[in-house]
Amino acid sequence: MSEIKITYFPVKALAEPIRMLLKYGNINFDDNRFQQENWPNIKPDMPFGQVPIYEEAGRIAHQSIAITRYVAKKVKLVGDSDWENLEIDSVVDTINDLRQKIAYYWYEQDAAVKESRKGPLIEETLPFYLTRLESIAEKNNGHFALKKLTWADIYFTGLLDYLNFMLGTNMIEKYPNLQAVANNVRSVPAIKSWIETRPQSDL
Amino acid sequence: MSEIKITYFPVKALAEPIRMLLKYGNINFDDNRFQQENWPNIKPDMPFGQVPIYEEAGRIAHQSIAITRYVAKKVKLVGDSDWENLEIDSVVDTINDLRQKIAYYWYEQDAAVKESRKGPLIEETLPFYLTRLESIAEKNNGHFALKKLTWADIYFTGLLDYLNFMLGTNMIEKYPNLQAVANNVRSVPAIKSWIETRPQSDL
Repeated sequence: MSEIKITYFPVKALAEPIRMLLKYGNINFDDNRFQQENWPNIKPDMPFGQVPIYEEAGRIAHQSIAITRYVAKKVKLVGDSDWENLEIDSVVDTINDLRQKIAYYWYEQDAAVKESRKGPLIEETLPFYLTRLESIAEKNNGHFALKKLTWADIYFTGLLDYLNFMLGTNMIEKYPNLQAVANNVRSVPAIKSWIETRPQSDL
Repeated sequence: MSEIKITYFPVKALAEPIRMLLKYGNINFDDNRFQQENWPNIKPDMPFGQVPIYEEAGRIAHQSIAITRYVAKKVKLVGDSDWENLEIDSVVDTINDLRQKIAYYWYEQDAAVKESRKGPLIEETLPFYLTRLESIAEKNNGHFALKKLTWADIYFTGLLDYLNFMLGTNMIEKYPNLQAVANNVRSVPAIKSWIETRPQSDL
């Protein structure tokens, strides 16, 4: 039993950036995936009813971005100054904004309402965010900050399959610099090996 | 002209935690408030079309929570270890989740849809979050983390007028430990003085 444990659904989504960072740092962890049908039993015991949670040395943490930042410090994929970390944090929160806007469409239960949200999402929101993120990635040579690999790149790449699943398309198809970000992350040997061996899931 | 500049609407809302932290640290800043009618002219020049933005030494940053964390480091209202900062970050992101759920109701344009969101918000979402935050504040003696003043307390207190404005009520009325958090922040002399002298606004 390893000291670190991540509890989440059997998917990539919000836990995958955390898993990728731990793999990057060659840190063992218990990849605790529960089945969807068990969620109603698990949810009441989760802080604020949400996952992923992260456990280490008997302590528990929640909020995926906060956990991701914490693990990024552990594996030294953060900035060297407070301003550099602000730069990383701001792009991470922007990627999270984009994720929420996609989720706002995807998780809508009313089919007509859901459909009505699709057009503005695809035609306005996605190009708005992706052209600006593309520009940031271009200025940083295939990264989101500091012209080098940081946890912002891993946050984006870890979420990408989930975002593409919700959209039903490859959202970075027309954005070569965003592809470069993902390729730079996926070609790190420890992450490449993880992608090849991790449990398979759509999202 | 001071070196640091915050650009935002003439309200508290997302900029107020940043302003409070700067006041706490006795750091001068240019409190640049633009009028609502000028927003269409300003918006296209903002990174990702949003405010507040933060400028310092010719550099610009966006994303309010990222900026708040950066200023908190400057005024030393952060934790002493990575785990302590994870604890702060997770409660901040949880308060932000609550803010978004309130905003999801408040900013809805369709009056009938807006009304339909009010019941679940008031009867389910608010008690869910506030009872859990109350419990955290109780365990931490009137703070959200580390049993002492951190930027999580200032983030919450800075946002509180805005949240209460959207709700049309004092959401912490029945939560003595959340009141203690706000009182602890508001009684810091530099913040007390700021509250007494800052430009007046509803939200």
